[in-house]
Amino acid sequence: MNRITTDICIVGAGPVGLFAVFEAGLLKMRCHVVDALPAVGGQLSEIYPKKPIYDIPGFPEILAGDLIKNLEQQIAPFHPTFTLGERVEDLEKLEDGSFILNTVDGTEIACKVVVIAGGLGSFEPRKPAIENLEKYEGNGVTYMVRDPEHFRDKRVVLAGGGDSALDWAIYLSALCKEISLVHRGTSFRGAPESADKVVSLAEEGKLNLILKSNVTEVHGGDKLEKVTVMMDNATPVAIEADYFIPLFGLVPKLGPLENWGLELEKNAIVVNTEDYSTNIEGVYAIGDINTYPGKLKLILCGFHEAALMAHSAYNIINPGKKFVLKYTTVNGIQELA
Amino acid sequence: MNRITTDICIVGAGPVGLFAVFEAGLLKMRCHVVDALPAVGGQLSEIYPKKPIYDIPGFPEILAGDLIKNLEQQIAPFHPTFTLGERVEDLEKLEDGSFILNTVDGTEIACKVVVIAGGLGSFEPRKPAIENLEKYEGNGVTYMVRDPEHFRDKRVVLAGGGDSALDWAIYLSALCKEISLVHRGTSFRGAPESADKVVSLAEEGKLNLILKSNVTEVHGGDKLEKVTVMMDNATPVAIEADYFIPLFGLVPKLGPLENWGLELEKNAIVVNTEDYSTNIEGVYAIGDINTYPGKLKLILCGFHEAALMAHSAYNIINPGKKFVLKYTTVNGIQELA
Repeated sequence: MNRITTDICIVGAGPVGLFAVFEAGLLKMRCHVVDALPAVGGQLSEIYPKKPIYDIPGFPEILAGDLIKNLEQQIAPFHPTFTLGERVEDLEKLEDGSFILNTVDGTEIACKVVVIAGGLGSFEPRKPAIENLEKYEGNGVTYMVRDPEHFRDKRVVLAGGGDSALDWAIYLSALCKEISLVHRGTSFRGAPESADKVVSLAEEGKLNLILKSNVTEVHGGDKLEKVTVMMDNATPVAIEADYFIPLFGLVPKLGPLENWGLELEKNAIVVNTEDYSTNIEGVYAIGDINTYPGKLKLILCGFHEAALMAHSAYNIINPGKKFVLKYTTVNGIQELA
Repeated sequence: MNRITTDICIVGAGPVGLFAVFEAGLLKMRCHVVDALPAVGGQLSEIYPKKPIYDIPGFPEILAGDLIKNLEQQIAPFHPTFTLGERVEDLEKLEDGSFILNTVDGTEIACKVVVIAGGLGSFEPRKPAIENLEKYEGNGVTYMVRDPEHFRDKRVVLAGGGDSALDWAIYLSALCKEISLVHRGTSFRGAPESADKVVSLAEEGKLNLILKSNVTEVHGGDKLEKVTVMMDNATPVAIEADYFIPLFGLVPKLGPLENWGLELEKNAIVVNTEDYSTNIEGVYAIGDINTYPGKLKLILCGFHEAALMAHSAYNIINPGKKFVLKYTTVNGIQELA
């Protein structure tokens, strides 16, 4: 088992988590950063690295990926350590007030302060409200197409009206034995050319397009065997299916930290604006994952929250020691040995 | 008289005042910026334009002057207007809730929201606690040497132990009829070579150096005639003087806005962290000039405060209109016509 000891464990390696390393480093506190994603930068690296951001103060325009590179350079003097590609699972508070965090892959991090900078949390598929749906997860119900070959010569029912439903309907229509696309509306949210393609595939008989309808039931033994589609005329129709793939987009979820005893409000962690501390002493939440009166989910707000958090965490890590704020303009940056 | 009408009047053109223009601009609110200094940038332009700053998020290092240039470029699409080199004097709240601000030079600004981003305020001379001192201001007592020729052939008493006391003692010793330097200690805070020079001038009889002593009284009729120096041996000595120049450094002062009815605490404006509003509805205070629990006087904190202020000000300027936060990454920046 991999065991790490540090002053502050930062959960989340997005821009705000990275900048927290800087603010902690100015106060000579060491940081270890954990993220479920395999690279630093959070959404900025994962979702929009090549998109320009216009509201980072001092940058009329900066690519998301470049902001992350700059932040990596800015925190380099403080030599943070990282555990990437592992999701934090458990938080344990010890009698002395310090913490042990465990990742799903068995890394254990001992620290005095925990900073949750988890952004919007992890993105999970939005599931339709169908009884027994979870019973068939892994046995015919899946929420994403990882390997299309898996569905070759199978009977598949897709549901949804966005780009991924359209794109997979088109792609899988060439592979599957039978494919149906069930959509509650008549128009699609996805690209018009994809929608046109789906309509022409349906006209050619290569795809069963069922509009103004919803999948309402799933049936089978150990494995999925059929789904019930409630048609526009309120008639239920059974369709035999090896696979049912609802493609209704992703929703952010807090994930395991929902069970840590933190005070939550609308999928966010409630914090005190004096230092962005949570209801658990020694645990802070900064960036998009927290909530307080006036909260704006802006990166620049997370930067401010990181600064106030660090000054408060200093008192936990250095009890009884008085800190005097020194400006970097006067003193520069002192590297952590 | 120069009259300006705008949505938001920002008092202070430092980095936080400038970024407030950006956050307001994203919400389509127009800004006019007033500053007593003749250029934008506040202390960053005035005091340390060539010094590097290390704690602006995303900049491992940036010169203060360059940060201001970047901010000017960032706010350019919103076409802010400026009144520079004029100090705001009065704030008047009208019956409809809007405001009129007046500068000392007669500019009148009509606006719906006032944002005070005044940094540490204006710097004023630190005055010694001497009875009647203010009576002679302009008639023998002055706190700075604007034109040294003014003191030619006069009897001058300087007080202080820093660089400006030493430098002016050296300079004026060649001009004045009589010059004394009174210093409460025996060592100087100023540059050692200046201190050595002052000591040798005293040894040559060109300067009267009085250590371990303080000026305690000022006397005269309409004009200053003499000062009393309390010597180290507790003996008061009178020195005839046309001018007394205490040089005890500068202290930040809030200035005229002390009289605007704002709730103050230790030379700062008390604000609500939900939106950085003051006790006067429609007046906000952001950056170093405000105070709240946990406050850190960092530029990056002022940026956050500007963002929350703008979203709150939006409701005053657009009553009843709902604003939905849009990310610049998705929508870019829309220039204000």
